[in-house]
Amino acid sequence: MSLLAPIADVGRHPGTGGYRRSAWSDADMALREWFAGEARQRGLVLVEDGNGNQLAWWGAEDGHDALLLGSHLDSVPDGGAYDGPLGVVSSFAAVDALQREGFRPARPVVVANFADEEGARFGVACAGSRLAAGALAPERALALTDRDGRTMAEVVRARGRDPLAVGPAEWLTRVGTFVELHVEQGRSLVHDGAAVGVASAIWPHGRWRFDFRGEANHAGATPMPDRHDPVQAFAATVLAARRLATAAGARATFGRLDVEPGGTNAIPSRVQAWLDSRAAGEADLAELVAAITAAAQTAAEDDGTSVEVVAESVSPAVSFDAGLRDRLATLLDAPVLPTGAGHDAGVLSPLLPTAMLFVRNPTGVSHAPSEFADDDDCAAGVEALTAVVRDLAGAS
Amino acid sequence: MSLLAPIADVGRHPGTGGYRRSAWSDADMALREWFAGEARQRGLVLVEDGNGNQLAWWGAEDGHDALLLGSHLDSVPDGGAYDGPLGVVSSFAAVDALQREGFRPARPVVVANFADEEGARFGVACAGSRLAAGALAPERALALTDRDGRTMAEVVRARGRDPLAVGPAEWLTRVGTFVELHVEQGRSLVHDGAAVGVASAIWPHGRWRFDFRGEANHAGATPMPDRHDPVQAFAATVLAARRLATAAGARATFGRLDVEPGGTNAIPSRVQAWLDSRAAGEADLAELVAAITAAAQTAAEDDGTSVEVVAESVSPAVSFDAGLRDRLATLLDAPVLPTGAGHDAGVLSPLLPTAMLFVRNPTGVSHAPSEFADDDDCAAGVEALTAVVRDLAGAS
Repeated sequence: MSLLAPIADVGRHPGTGGYRRSAWSDADMALREWFAGEARQRGLVLVEDGNGNQLAWWGAEDGHDALLLGSHLDSVPDGGAYDGPLGVVSSFAAVDALQREGFRPARPVVVANFADEEGARFGVACAGSRLAAGALAPERALALTDRDGRTMAEVVRARGRDPLAVGPAEWLTRVGTFVELHVEQGRSLVHDGAAVGVASAIWPHGRWRFDFRGEANHAGATPMPDRHDPVQAFAATVLAARRLATAAGARATFGRLDVEPGGTNAIPSRVQAWLDSRAAGEADLAELVAAITAAAQTAAEDDGTSVEVVAESVSPAVSFDAGLRDRLATLLDAPVLPTGAGHDAGVLSPLLPTAMLFVRNPTGVSHAPSEFADDDDCAAGVEALTAVVRDLAGAS
Repeated sequence: MSLLAPIADVGRHPGTGGYRRSAWSDADMALREWFAGEARQRGLVLVEDGNGNQLAWWGAEDGHDALLLGSHLDSVPDGGAYDGPLGVVSSFAAVDALQREGFRPARPVVVANFADEEGARFGVACAGSRLAAGALAPERALALTDRDGRTMAEVVRARGRDPLAVGPAEWLTRVGTFVELHVEQGRSLVHDGAAVGVASAIWPHGRWRFDFRGEANHAGATPMPDRHDPVQAFAATVLAARRLATAAGARATFGRLDVEPGGTNAIPSRVQAWLDSRAAGEADLAELVAAITAAAQTAAEDDGTSVEVVAESVSPAVSFDAGLRDRLATLLDAPVLPTGAGHDAGVLSPLLPTAMLFVRNPTGVSHAPSEFADDDDCAAGVEALTAVVRDLAGAS
């Protein structure tokens, strides 16, 4: 954990041991300050775009064909230390190694901290990179609300940012290549016996809000057959989602729930539940979500309740640039592997040649306090990223 | 709704139309002020005991063998207008009718507002009457926490009350009879074609906290067979609870839930769910909860997760005083009916002769914004309560 030691205490909950670094929280602001300081120490020029993405330029900040590195610093609620930050600290460490050896990049090298990657606060993942790429409309993003009912517009304004500046970013047109390093979220590299791997693809994935509605009533006085309890259809949907996803070799998770009114002695009137689902192909994913939706509707109808399903965000499959992928796999003698997790690299991949390096995760656990990577594997990640910069930004 | 018009706006949520009057909230404090004003207007002497129970005495406040009326003013989250307040306003209206006709009670008549009846904030129902009756230990009550982690001791102190004063109440030893009027929570009186009925019994009931624990992980990167997702065992338990309660002619409800960490893209590590269950007999109830617990344990074991079940409060069956019940049923020519709902009258019934009057509820809905009773039926309730006071507190 030595690479991450400088930020190990920021936003860490003493009770759970997990990180609570949602976008624009106090913890996130502290990490932004830390990022600015790291850039300054290395003589990099810090630019923040209108979306809150921080960019530390090694070489002219108005240069072209830049090589972009970095990842994000925000976390899911009670997330781990590595998801995001490992890519940022490894990028700075690679710059250190190259500066020590007197390397002069032939193109600008940029370390990024993308804003709001997890989407934990406003519900849309990779908001910072999507906005910069023009893949998310500013008016839609600014109207998104957090759990306290505050809009993104209110939140960024309260942090001294101008909501009118949100939108497609000019700097992105001056990036030629993006390489994002990330802790693996799974155990493929354990099976491969490799500390570092190169990504082939990101599964298509998305988030769907299931809104189950029934009728509130007294928990003691209402006979079971007279109830319209939306928790029942929700429960049936949870079991169906597992069965269907398992059969399809895909993934389905209900990790966030909201029950109204939430009294112990009242039958609820409403359950909102968010489905996160992923599959190897886009048709497979659509079919799986349709089947889960159908199961929810059948269960709701049986109970005289109802369900509506709204897609909150759906990300298509990403196949990373084949030439770049093969070049890095050969350079590093590293295995190639797909992932079920979304990343800013997936958002930018339609716009420019993009690649990802994964660092081995011995347990496969991510989005949890116990997420972990060995110091030696993290060092191997830095070494690999250093080699990549040397290769892609060296004098030709 | 004319009887309830004076407090119709207090704590009403404009979005849901439901009442949010949890114990010691701003809305509850406003209702206490209103209660004090109503007592003053009628020349009643207001006393508040150490538990926050408000008592308006008609006749000497140190008198003996008092006839207690009243109910409570707090609500479940997004509750209805009638559950609790109808009993309080009907008691004041009965006092009005009797004062108009020059009635002089032969024993003190007391209108009560019992504190924290719903238990919506601290998890223990009828806290005010239980504390007064010595059926809840003050140190246990004061240590109960609300959802913000504040203890009851902190909350009452912040409202200017002395936590050291919480405990058994002397005034209760000077009460000879309690008659609580309440809106029916069910449709028995609709079937009986009667505006008012008399309670025979309260089913035994309780609240159990089910604490399902699994392992947080990434929703995209974790294959279905590798998961330890506690939402699955929770869902299986919800379906089992319905099946078992239906078969037993009993009731089981999961109306309150807490999922951690609650991120859309994270498999949860923990689900806490509160079971409210009721049955006609105590052995039936114990058997039902044991069967639901066993179903939860089996489901959890299958998933490599775990569940612990803790009884938070269990109330025995209540059979109201037979003599008083028959006297009121004869006096009012009213049907006799049991209920699945708990009440302060159930708490006090082991200590003194206690009865309940129910007012017809056309839909049977309660603990919901649509809870309703006809004005005519409410007027019949006041008339019945007036007759009861005339009968029980008239010159012998």
